[in-house]
Amino acid sequence: MIRRIGAHTVGFEEMPSIIGYAGVAGKIESQGPLADCFDKLIFDSYNGKDTYEQAESSLQAEAVSLAISKAKTTADEINYIFAGDLLNQCIGSSYGLLDFNIPYLGQYGACSTMAQGLIMASVFVESGAANAAMCVTSSHFCSAERQYRFPLEYGGVRTPTAQWTVTGAGSCVLRNDKKGPSVAKATVGKIVDLGVKDANNMGAAMAPAAADTLKNFFDDTGTKPSDYDLVLTGDLGEVGSRLLCQLLNQQSIDITQKHNDCGLMIFDRNKQDVHAGGSGCGCAGSVFCSKILNDMQSGKLKNILFMATGALMSPTSSGQGASIPSIAHLVNVKNR
Amino acid sequence: MIRRIGAHTVGFEEMPSIIGYAGVAGKIESQGPLADCFDKLIFDSYNGKDTYEQAESSLQAEAVSLAISKAKTTADEINYIFAGDLLNQCIGSSYGLLDFNIPYLGQYGACSTMAQGLIMASVFVESGAANAAMCVTSSHFCSAERQYRFPLEYGGVRTPTAQWTVTGAGSCVLRNDKKGPSVAKATVGKIVDLGVKDANNMGAAMAPAAADTLKNFFDDTGTKPSDYDLVLTGDLGEVGSRLLCQLLNQQSIDITQKHNDCGLMIFDRNKQDVHAGGSGCGCAGSVFCSKILNDMQSGKLKNILFMATGALMSPTSSGQGASIPSIAHLVNVKNR
Repeated sequence: MIRRIGAHTVGFEEMPSIIGYAGVAGKIESQGPLADCFDKLIFDSYNGKDTYEQAESSLQAEAVSLAISKAKTTADEINYIFAGDLLNQCIGSSYGLLDFNIPYLGQYGACSTMAQGLIMASVFVESGAANAAMCVTSSHFCSAERQYRFPLEYGGVRTPTAQWTVTGAGSCVLRNDKKGPSVAKATVGKIVDLGVKDANNMGAAMAPAAADTLKNFFDDTGTKPSDYDLVLTGDLGEVGSRLLCQLLNQQSIDITQKHNDCGLMIFDRNKQDVHAGGSGCGCAGSVFCSKILNDMQSGKLKNILFMATGALMSPTSSGQGASIPSIAHLVNVKNR
Repeated sequence: MIRRIGAHTVGFEEMPSIIGYAGVAGKIESQGPLADCFDKLIFDSYNGKDTYEQAESSLQAEAVSLAISKAKTTADEINYIFAGDLLNQCIGSSYGLLDFNIPYLGQYGACSTMAQGLIMASVFVESGAANAAMCVTSSHFCSAERQYRFPLEYGGVRTPTAQWTVTGAGSCVLRNDKKGPSVAKATVGKIVDLGVKDANNMGAAMAPAAADTLKNFFDDTGTKPSDYDLVLTGDLGEVGSRLLCQLLNQQSIDITQKHNDCGLMIFDRNKQDVHAGGSGCGCAGSVFCSKILNDMQSGKLKNILFMATGALMSPTSSGQGASIPSIAHLVNVKNR
């Protein structure tokens, strides 16, 4: 049963279990601190395909295959797959998942997609709409650069606030198995736009949405940051993470002792030239579906908040001078 | 309670009711046979905004406002909005819905988005995740042309199989009110790709996905076309509709007496230069949320199948020579 908690949160009584998960990452990520956590590392930007977009699709396919196999199930036992990515018309997902033959519901939450997909799969499993459901998301540095910024060959210099799009994918399979890491609660975010227009500073644009969702969750549940082992954001990076802590501090919420960010975890910013940290759907996706869920399974983490954030603009809206509307979706994952 | 029916279908025992709906359309649509059915007609392509993209966002805002007001509720009573459109990064939705302050879950199903949103809202309402939920989608001829085809000023000649993107939006509010048009069953589609590569013949690309979903629904429920007052497809247009009937005929399913297509209903192809008919998320959206739901409320229609289809390619994938993966989601709407 799903019950509403306060104005913005839902609780899952049965708590759908994450019975299989996989994180796949690329070459730059293999040089970062989480290299050993990923299920598969892909060193060729093309992954043997003809285009970067096809390579991104193949990352999703790899993550989905691995997650299904680690869940000890088969694709025809999965009733729905919730998938999305950053490419125009989400072609990373549609081409990547074609061969699995799983009923498909495309999601668009920009870099919040991993959390959004988890929420969807949880609602479908808990409600009985699905026996098993899964989610997947991806990003690819090369396909993102040419779609959102400049041709790679141009070698454009990046601003210090810019983030580095992660080449990676993450996927989870959920079923009502009553064991392991399980989804206990979820808070869906509202679109928040405080007027940030700098597409090279996504962290700043997304931080207010993250603060809003987190505040709503704590208000609804009557809990506080110290009740959790970790408050994990998706890809706020260095600038956005600092802003989030400041915004919450103004509301007397101190997450500094519990907070980490997938965009800060995946790279070593002292050694790797990634500016403010990692970003992209695949950032939260690959980190959550590797390091984080590994640590939950081992018991190192028991009760966490995972909140992925997304910037909902496009190159067209930025070119037209519009500000960047953002969103953050939160999932409370507990170990059984 | 939601129960699974066969391999692909779910049934909603409480049957969430569509308690408010609205269809908004543009100038060319106002010259078509459904002009009197729309809640609002907008004759200015810019709708008073600076860009076509902002105009499209404003169509969604108009449809949502009208649907909420016709449902005799307020935005803060709506727990979730499921929204999506054809623009890159779904900016029609993110900018259009910013001011409503409703928890937002972006959907990407291309032209299948109206059916996908209805399914999402139904699952969330029936499961108790939402007291009330809504969905919205849109398309705009001018924003679609410049993103998918050519600058309007170029005046490119269209092929006979091409369809005309509808300028319009449709929105529904769902709640468990046990009255009026209500969602009884749903079948989520799989991605189907039979190798059609012609982006000017979307109907042909989408017809196989439509046939697959419809066949799955009839198999799961043990029903046949004659059990329904109408089998309505989203925007297959003339070419795709003919192909759908042929594909189903090969499997001994005859929908010809019951079938209609939103893309054929919204324009008068004898008088309007729209080639194979209407298309775009706003086609199925505006027709379903005006003419069709009006006819259900009046009792003229009692039990229908609404299946919107989507082509999941992008200009990038088409440019790279990829074929067009497609999808179709089906909703069975019954009058109480």
